[in-house]
Amino acid sequence: MKRAVVLLSGGLDSTTAAAVAKSDGYEIFALTIDYNQRHKIELESAKRVALALNTKQHVIFPLNLRLFGGSSLTDDWEVVKDISIDKIGETIPTSYVPARNIIFLSIAFAYAETIHANKIYIGVSAIDYSGYPDCRPEFLTAFENMAQISTKTGIEGNKISIAAPLVQLDKTATIRLGLSLGVDYSITHTCYDPALDGAACGCCESCLLRLQAFANAGIKDPIRYT
Amino acid sequence: MKRAVVLLSGGLDSTTAAAVAKSDGYEIFALTIDYNQRHKIELESAKRVALALNTKQHVIFPLNLRLFGGSSLTDDWEVVKDISIDKIGETIPTSYVPARNIIFLSIAFAYAETIHANKIYIGVSAIDYSGYPDCRPEFLTAFENMAQISTKTGIEGNKISIAAPLVQLDKTATIRLGLSLGVDYSITHTCYDPALDGAACGCCESCLLRLQAFANAGIKDPIRYT
Repeated sequence: MKRAVVLLSGGLDSTTAAAVAKSDGYEIFALTIDYNQRHKIELESAKRVALALNTKQHVIFPLNLRLFGGSSLTDDWEVVKDISIDKIGETIPTSYVPARNIIFLSIAFAYAETIHANKIYIGVSAIDYSGYPDCRPEFLTAFENMAQISTKTGIEGNKISIAAPLVQLDKTATIRLGLSLGVDYSITHTCYDPALDGAACGCCESCLLRLQAFANAGIKDPIRYT
Repeated sequence: MKRAVVLLSGGLDSTTAAAVAKSDGYEIFALTIDYNQRHKIELESAKRVALALNTKQHVIFPLNLRLFGGSSLTDDWEVVKDISIDKIGETIPTSYVPARNIIFLSIAFAYAETIHANKIYIGVSAIDYSGYPDCRPEFLTAFENMAQISTKTGIEGNKISIAAPLVQLDKTATIRLGLSLGVDYSITHTCYDPALDGAACGCCESCLLRLQAFANAGIKDPIRYT
């Protein structure tokens, strides 16, 4: 069976990307990066999703990006709340984590090489979060080309390629795609600043985009909000 | 003062690269990746080198590549010994760690972005270790271009570039360069399979290349061998 590494945060997007990988016929090796992010509860969602999708393996890889900080997700900065939804994506947000997706894809390539996977799925979207420079198709193409010439598998002609099935989808389309594949969104997590009991805040930029997308899809978001 | 991140393993090459960074007028932020490698003693060398070069900061970043394995340095494979020195570099060696330099440079970019450094020094050489695909100039150029378009600093026009001052030098030339800059090679570490007391084995591929280079330079290697 062909193998794919799936970068799985436990959020809505990566869960949908994992469901696409499964429906594409891949045996899934899930990779969750525990980057010591503010919202640790993501990791519990990732475990539930990995279980629900019957992944072959689930590696939780510790990577302490708090050693550097430089982001509202990895430093003691305030999470931006109640911003006008139209403003999201206009500039690079404070939730930008320096070089995050470069690091995540690098680690995914290391994993893919050792298990002989030929595909890496990543749930980035260039539509909803256009403020993030490391979510755009140009980045993915440049990364793939760079990795081809600098890894053993690439040199030997066993190309590992990157699949970003959501890159041209907005979040509403992503939810519709996921539901068509049977994704249970009640086990996903999105909020940047959840309550202690795990309930989402409903007003950080991540919650705002999620809630709007469910509303646009005409479906009630099944997770709990404070 | 301009700032540079230097990837510092504590080996001969990265120590020389750090000395070049210093002589280029940079304030040095040293980054040592503790990738749970077989030869942990490298970390002690890195600390000694950081101290000797009076670095502004020295981050030791844990990154457990043993979770994946796939290399004689991160798995329980035998270290290759007593290979004919002419054979080194003919094929990709078992000491190739999947995607290692991709990961290391990614983390260096994250660090550089947060401290506003505009240069990253890496001590790779395409001459001595031509078997490693992630030590070649094509890789460094592709990585730099990829990072420009996918990081906040790159997008905003504050380019972070990669300096690889040894990339076209063989190890003998590297040693001569280092000595001209006052490097104390007695505090560096190279061996893949050191004795418990830290003495180098003298017969792994890494020791063989080091010993040959010192011999070619007409200088006695100041470290201890078993």
